[in-house]
Amino acid sequence: MQIAMIQDKILAMEELEPAYLDRGIYFGDGVYEVVRSYNGKIFALEEHLARFADNLAAIKITGVDIDQIRSRIQKAFDTAGIPDARIYFHITRGSAPRSHTWDDNLVPNFFLTVAELDDDTETKTNGIAVSTHPDWRWKRCDIKSLNLLANILALADAAKKGCAEAILVNKDGLITEGAGSAFFAISANNLQTAPLTTNILPSITRKFVIEAGKNIGLEIIEKSLTVQQAANTDELFIAVTTKDIVPVVKFDDKVIGDGRPGKYTKLLIAEFHKFTM
Amino acid sequence: MQIAMIQDKILAMEELEPAYLDRGIYFGDGVYEVVRSYNGKIFALEEHLARFADNLAAIKITGVDIDQIRSRIQKAFDTAGIPDARIYFHITRGSAPRSHTWDDNLVPNFFLTVAELDDDTETKTNGIAVSTHPDWRWKRCDIKSLNLLANILALADAAKKGCAEAILVNKDGLITEGAGSAFFAISANNLQTAPLTTNILPSITRKFVIEAGKNIGLEIIEKSLTVQQAANTDELFIAVTTKDIVPVVKFDDKVIGDGRPGKYTKLLIAEFHKFTM
Repeated sequence: MQIAMIQDKILAMEELEPAYLDRGIYFGDGVYEVVRSYNGKIFALEEHLARFADNLAAIKITGVDIDQIRSRIQKAFDTAGIPDARIYFHITRGSAPRSHTWDDNLVPNFFLTVAELDDDTETKTNGIAVSTHPDWRWKRCDIKSLNLLANILALADAAKKGCAEAILVNKDGLITEGAGSAFFAISANNLQTAPLTTNILPSITRKFVIEAGKNIGLEIIEKSLTVQQAANTDELFIAVTTKDIVPVVKFDDKVIGDGRPGKYTKLLIAEFHKFTM
Repeated sequence: MQIAMIQDKILAMEELEPAYLDRGIYFGDGVYEVVRSYNGKIFALEEHLARFADNLAAIKITGVDIDQIRSRIQKAFDTAGIPDARIYFHITRGSAPRSHTWDDNLVPNFFLTVAELDDDTETKTNGIAVSTHPDWRWKRCDIKSLNLLANILALADAAKKGCAEAILVNKDGLITEGAGSAFFAISANNLQTAPLTTNILPSITRKFVIEAGKNIGLEIIEKSLTVQQAANTDELFIAVTTKDIVPVVKFDDKVIGDGRPGKYTKLLIAEFHKFTM
């Protein structure tokens, strides 16, 4: 008899809830997005949905109707009634007894949560400390997949050091991005961040930060930074959907600037918020 | 109100089954093992449990009692009553609303299945075809984690080409291992496989294959093969817990030897089976 066991409890395979057979748990076989709302309006939903569709295609999950996903997101958001919400959703390839290969007739699993955003006033005002960690991730970081073990281990290492984010460094000593954010440096009049390759996520927030940078007259440089360069720059910040721009005031043991959020970073935060009104 | 949505269904966050909050699905935050039994006896369980304990420690999942895991496995195996069984089990860090960081008091989730092994008589007799694929995996392939998207995508590519396994090739053109197996070449009197580094899994089957190789007088060479070297060798095979040794008779477009399982491979299969009696 085929059986399953959950903690100490034995049950017949047929009694298992579909969630226990989700390919998401066996293989991380799915992709996800996080969107947020500002004052009752979801920000950049179309950009996130376009990336989500690209990611589904990249891992060959077919038969997902993006219009239906959009409707579900809107319906869930309306139901929750949270003006400043964090909306997480993923799609996995479906549920089936564990097998590396899959049947093309699997039905993808959609899952979503809506919750209040964490208050980030303090981090915006004071900035955060970050620490570097080797970038252990796979070769397709352009895909926002459920394979996030390298990210959470890097972040745990940062947290242990009292830091709020891990900045990932590849074997050539170049910074790719944060464990859960894009990474930017400002030096003189230049706003620098890593170029879009298969090694980093095409961050939606990154796109808006670059637009904001142009608006305030910064020169955009898409070129990877070395650890040394980042430590010795004028200003640093991370960018992530749930918090938009967060100033970085300490990078490993190095205090950045005067240890407070830099002037261009503050201008960028203000400029970014024009997009979200 | 915090809410969740599963396909079209909206529910309150508190109504979610713990399986939907498993960090395994959000992050692949867990490790797994597959063991098999031969004729009513689980093979190399202690080796697998030792590796499992190492892997739990590597990703900092604490508080797991390996003696309890051993008892659970034995109990499930006895209950299933399948003489030639495939036993899969994993432990994830636990269930909690999605957050990259975790509380140390999370209770790890144990999950196990016992099922009949697929019959592999045909593949043993005729051998399999394999195809190469870039190794997209992360930098810690020595950890048997639930982050397996690179593996299943490589295997899907192989299946599309009519092949039974994908052989992964790093950016230096060196073969690391199969998407779900260890990889071996035999040339003259030499049995060659990649050395144990953070780039490959310390396969239990690999260990027994090497022992079997020594027993039949082969010279063991732990050195990565280039694609060219693999294509031009006398014999190839893969090794995996569920099938032990499977001859490879075609490598990309190249027929290996005379297109049938090689003599040393057949000797190794027989020698390996002495361990499992």
